[in-house]
Amino acid sequence: MRKLSPARLFTLPLVALGLALSLNVAAHLDDKEPMQSYRQSWFAMLGMNFGPIGAMLKGEMPWDEARLQMFANDMAALTSMDVSRAFPPGSDKGTTRAKPEIWSDMDDFKAKLDDLKTAVAQLQAAAGSGDKQAIATAVGATGKACKSCHDEYKSKDYLY
Amino acid sequence: MRKLSPARLFTLPLVALGLALSLNVAAHLDDKEPMQSYRQSWFAMLGMNFGPIGAMLKGEMPWDEARLQMFANDMAALTSMDVSRAFPPGSDKGTTRAKPEIWSDMDDFKAKLDDLKTAVAQLQAAAGSGDKQAIATAVGATGKACKSCHDEYKSKDYLY
Repeated sequence: MRKLSPARLFTLPLVALGLALSLNVAAHLDDKEPMQSYRQSWFAMLGMNFGPIGAMLKGEMPWDEARLQMFANDMAALTSMDVSRAFPPGSDKGTTRAKPEIWSDMDDFKAKLDDLKTAVAQLQAAAGSGDKQAIATAVGATGKACKSCHDEYKSKDYLY
Repeated sequence: MRKLSPARLFTLPLVALGLALSLNVAAHLDDKEPMQSYRQSWFAMLGMNFGPIGAMLKGEMPWDEARLQMFANDMAALTSMDVSRAFPPGSDKGTTRAKPEIWSDMDDFKAKLDDLKTAVAQLQAAAGSGDKQAIATAVGATGKACKSCHDEYKSKDYLY
């Protein structure tokens, strides 16, 4: 059997898979751009859990520690996934705001994803402490981890 | 402060949040239908990790236990999230194939999601065993859990 690169191993079945899945999840999986869809889903879910935590801190939403913990847990579940594998070579095209620097500086990009994972783990721990100041600090660190990566690797415009 | 229902608590900030996030994740978060987007992202990501496992079993993709474990781990991370909270009252409209029975039989719907979580945990454990037969059995049970819920609660057509 011909040896395939790891990136190719991941991409290969998804091309076929995309066709099957498009019947099921058409709204959220573009079968022509499965990797772009996958990673955008991941970022969207992460943001949708981070948003309400920020809203609670700002008083825009009632303070509710059980729900805050749930949002933080779900962020931790997401960052436990290695989303970098959804950036294989060639997936820098199409509906994406991923800058070319992701592929030229992949090690740094992965390091920044690890920083995010660390920050989210601290947010998850802080959420359980009930200490609002500790939560605010962890939220700040998490937001900083998001921004540090966006500044470097996310375009303001779609690159297609 | 006026008491809000749990469903409303989740929906409330997302309406505002959707507006902010739409700048970032336009392709995968419809700010008019954030709940529909959220759950469809979840299902798409789950399917994209389950697909390659099935492909390995069918020999359509090279057998690779490390990658199989990674896919199973990511499915477990996703099913550790409570996606049922992305089905609040009122989110039965728009771009969705969620059948009305989800809301009228919410307890059963949640029980079926729990069944899926259990099946995926068994798949994750089997993946680590290196026992191909155990993996095939766990994949079958996971597929059955998907189907059992789809049969009941997922329309073949979009309901809009």
